[in-house]
Amino acid sequence: MDKSTLHHLIDVAAGRVPADLCLKNCRVVDVFNKDLFSADVLITRGLIAGFGGSDFPPAEETFDAKGAYLAPGLIDSHVHIESSHLSPAEFSRLVVPHGTTTVVADPHEICNVCGLEGFDYMLKASKDTALQVFLQVPSCVPCTPFEHAGAVLEAEQIALRLGNPRVLGLGELMNYVGVCAADDCILDKLIVADRFHKLVDGHSPGLFGAALDAYTASGVRTDHECSSPEELEDRVRRGVYVLLRQGTACHDVVNLLPGVKRGNDRFCLFCTDDRQSASLIQEGHIDNNIRLAVSHGLDPITAICMATINAANCYNMPDRGSVAPGRRADLILFEDLDDLRVHHVWVAGKLVAAHGTYLAQDPHVKPEGVSGRMNVRNFSPQRLALPLRSDLARTIRIIPGSVVTEEGRVRVKRDQDGCWVRDEQDVVKIAVVERHKGTGCIGLGLLEGYGLKNGAVATSVAHDSHNIIVAGDNNADMAIAVRQLVEMGGGMAIVHQGRLLGSLPHEIAGLMTDRPGEEVAHRLEELGSIACEVLGVHESVDPFMTLCFMALPVIPKLKITDTGLFDVNAFCTVPVEADD
Amino acid sequence: MDKSTLHHLIDVAAGRVPADLCLKNCRVVDVFNKDLFSADVLITRGLIAGFGGSDFPPAEETFDAKGAYLAPGLIDSHVHIESSHLSPAEFSRLVVPHGTTTVVADPHEICNVCGLEGFDYMLKASKDTALQVFLQVPSCVPCTPFEHAGAVLEAEQIALRLGNPRVLGLGELMNYVGVCAADDCILDKLIVADRFHKLVDGHSPGLFGAALDAYTASGVRTDHECSSPEELEDRVRRGVYVLLRQGTACHDVVNLLPGVKRGNDRFCLFCTDDRQSASLIQEGHIDNNIRLAVSHGLDPITAICMATINAANCYNMPDRGSVAPGRRADLILFEDLDDLRVHHVWVAGKLVAAHGTYLAQDPHVKPEGVSGRMNVRNFSPQRLALPLRSDLARTIRIIPGSVVTEEGRVRVKRDQDGCWVRDEQDVVKIAVVERHKGTGCIGLGLLEGYGLKNGAVATSVAHDSHNIIVAGDNNADMAIAVRQLVEMGGGMAIVHQGRLLGSLPHEIAGLMTDRPGEEVAHRLEELGSIACEVLGVHESVDPFMTLCFMALPVIPKLKITDTGLFDVNAFCTVPVEADD
Repeated sequence: MDKSTLHHLIDVAAGRVPADLCLKNCRVVDVFNKDLFSADVLITRGLIAGFGGSDFPPAEETFDAKGAYLAPGLIDSHVHIESSHLSPAEFSRLVVPHGTTTVVADPHEICNVCGLEGFDYMLKASKDTALQVFLQVPSCVPCTPFEHAGAVLEAEQIALRLGNPRVLGLGELMNYVGVCAADDCILDKLIVADRFHKLVDGHSPGLFGAALDAYTASGVRTDHECSSPEELEDRVRRGVYVLLRQGTACHDVVNLLPGVKRGNDRFCLFCTDDRQSASLIQEGHIDNNIRLAVSHGLDPITAICMATINAANCYNMPDRGSVAPGRRADLILFEDLDDLRVHHVWVAGKLVAAHGTYLAQDPHVKPEGVSGRMNVRNFSPQRLALPLRSDLARTIRIIPGSVVTEEGRVRVKRDQDGCWVRDEQDVVKIAVVERHKGTGCIGLGLLEGYGLKNGAVATSVAHDSHNIIVAGDNNADMAIAVRQLVEMGGGMAIVHQGRLLGSLPHEIAGLMTDRPGEEVAHRLEELGSIACEVLGVHESVDPFMTLCFMALPVIPKLKITDTGLFDVNAFCTVPVEADD
Repeated sequence: MDKSTLHHLIDVAAGRVPADLCLKNCRVVDVFNKDLFSADVLITRGLIAGFGGSDFPPAEETFDAKGAYLAPGLIDSHVHIESSHLSPAEFSRLVVPHGTTTVVADPHEICNVCGLEGFDYMLKASKDTALQVFLQVPSCVPCTPFEHAGAVLEAEQIALRLGNPRVLGLGELMNYVGVCAADDCILDKLIVADRFHKLVDGHSPGLFGAALDAYTASGVRTDHECSSPEELEDRVRRGVYVLLRQGTACHDVVNLLPGVKRGNDRFCLFCTDDRQSASLIQEGHIDNNIRLAVSHGLDPITAICMATINAANCYNMPDRGSVAPGRRADLILFEDLDDLRVHHVWVAGKLVAAHGTYLAQDPHVKPEGVSGRMNVRNFSPQRLALPLRSDLARTIRIIPGSVVTEEGRVRVKRDQDGCWVRDEQDVVKIAVVERHKGTGCIGLGLLEGYGLKNGAVATSVAHDSHNIIVAGDNNADMAIAVRQLVEMGGGMAIVHQGRLLGSLPHEIAGLMTDRPGEEVAHRLEELGSIACEVLGVHESVDPFMTLCFMALPVIPKLKITDTGLFDVNAFCTVPVEADD
């Protein structure tokens, strides 16, 4: 803070000079005492000065809250903005009207494609949004050494960004196996974070006992992958803040609530992790976590604390998360504590949303340096042929509603060359086509339980390496879909009997579009309908989101990368043939 | 942390290599869940690794806790070590066996005498003590511009020490009037603290409303001067951590307890502020705050949280305050949650106290550069004569048990030169003799309600400038006492009818002795008895502590400095004569 601002702030608080803005007649949510109090709130130069007095000079501008609740702006403690398929500016436009004013974003997806160039694009593209975006430097790029991603971030690269004041720490340490084994290159990253006195985010589904001790001893201080109250308490006991996640796919809030108690709620936060545009538009953002928790019995002020002061404490952001003198005037107004629906939002004292409408004018940032990342070489339909030594094959068996898969075994039909061909079973081909380095790598396998017939579905959003993933019953349609993605610079495509039925370009790194959220939500819904209605993808399976996770080699059991089928439990590639 | 330590820590947590120490059969106080759990605690290289497992290799050393409670080491969030009259090493020897392992110390007293040399002595003298001493850089040296202290610390000097990793922030901003008025030189200090991202400690007795807003807007984040639950809630509401103080003179814990609630207790801490050696020996340290609070109804685990994790969070010390993997093994063991009596203490995994005995071997640090600070010039008994223009005089009237005074008015007796002489009233002379700069300044006044007859009591511990303060009924005895202090390099002295009845040298800056705590406590008690029994000082008045506060010109109402009588409310010097 500069001296003139500090001087002015004290003068306004003391009533010697007028405030820029007075929010009159507020019922302020006091996150420190877990209480409410009635007050006028004086704001100047983007900061809260104080609560005024009877003999104070009138503010330049007055807003009458008419007794509505005034709370601090909400904080999403862990989100991958890329999962919304939207640019940071568009993400801001969708979430700010719901009351989110700060997010801790891990640009893990775009860094897997573009490395630090992707990181810098996210920094730049969110620099002037109404939404305050803080970043974590991704810790696990690539996710595993078994596949080709667009970049490798070692400790030295991470160190280049950790000093940035908008960087709060090291992103989720997904490689918990490596942490517990004290892998050298992971230790290097942890040491770098420690050197910068920055927080380390965790990701430790199912870890307990000594393994959890080892993981925590490494310095990890958050986790958003808990799925039971016992896991929550186990982590909190070790000084790990637990983030209750409500994403589009992962719904943990209700399951975890029994673990949130008066003794430990200060160590509980909210996050969304991955949330698509349709979910943001239809259900909201962190306000949705709060409503859900409160409707399941959580005290509303505690819920607000979890989305504000607790997050500010965890991530060492002392300038926000409360309605108190000297803090940022990031504020939300609403009528009902039990059903929080935000109708006004201020960021740094500026009204940025009213009744669902975004009022900020964010500058458009061109996706320079991160567009058209489609370096596919040596590709042809013939290269999608899957020759098999035997007719007993493994399948990646989808579990509807889950990102975990099972390993299936089927007797398959082969053509005269010994290559897989479709039969009446619910099995299609799945391929991952490397798109970053022009290696020409293509991984091939079989997918069970997808429902698709007569066509292909493809996307360049495929966690975490984001190569092209395509599922189809014939090589020709699959190849058309892949080529469409290459031509568009990434995105989504559906092909049926040689014809492109629909597509959505993702011109930002092949991960995000530069279009309005509503359009994206609508187009994705449309593509989903085509996939289900025309191609026969099961209604119980989201056609694109399911594919997205089939290439993620850190979630059990069988997955596929550009180097082939991958057994996550055994942590190695395996052949498609199951005659071993 | 270095990489080899991190590697080793993870290996121990995972059970691959033996721990240095295993504390078996502990009932661990879980400050995160406010819960208890039974565990063995593995320690290596001074850190907690984890809680072990059945197939773990045996530790190098095992300590059987036999089911006793294991909690994190206690933290005193605000203390002036100088007030114990002991060196830092001796302070450590007295408080560590009571379970205190970390203190946030404001070396305000020694800095008023020696400036940054005093600060550096405190850093050096506490560098290798078992007690972990963090320092705040004093913000108000001198206390006011109306008197002579030994040093002036401006923003530039403060900046020279704020970067030190053992410095947590800016010490208590006592000049709350200046803060609320946005005084330029105070803003400079606040800006410096902000630049270093360091905390600012507060001191705002009785402030409320807009003044408290202004004070908080300045960035102040703690307060240890609350005396009512309402004051506590008012400060917490503004995001100010409140420290519940139990000093030798100030007893706030019980008064404040009704304000500590389940909603806000995370923002409540404990401190002692000023605590003399006798109190430390007889009652204890932060363990005394806990026992007192628990005996008055506070939940024992909440009380422990206030002395551990809450303080660690407030002062941004993520490496301590809990029994969790990766944190420092600063630990205490005790049998009864409702009456916390610590019997074993580990600091960084080393046993440093057992059953009240200090086991650490701290190196002795010579008080170089801070001894013999007695630069008194142009002094003679004649200079203690108090000529009065009239026989109506103001007195500083003592309120027993308080550091606040009243202004009294008395008709006094004068000699042939018009100078004050003793009569039958309970009024004696009080003088402050400048000792830092050799200015020759002597401030003179009258003290009512002290009880002294026939002699003089003097000390060089006199908040905050620590000039020599002396009370007596005759100039000769007063002068002997002053000269005795000069000769000893500071301390305490009692003179009766021309004879020195007792003294205690304070060879460290005239504020602290280099002797054992037990001896100091005993000698102080002895001196107190002499003052009461021989000189007639009232039993209700501590002879030295009362004098200590008579020179503190920021506590109402009438005080005395080396430049004369000072009206704190009017904030100016006033004549002794009351005929205005």
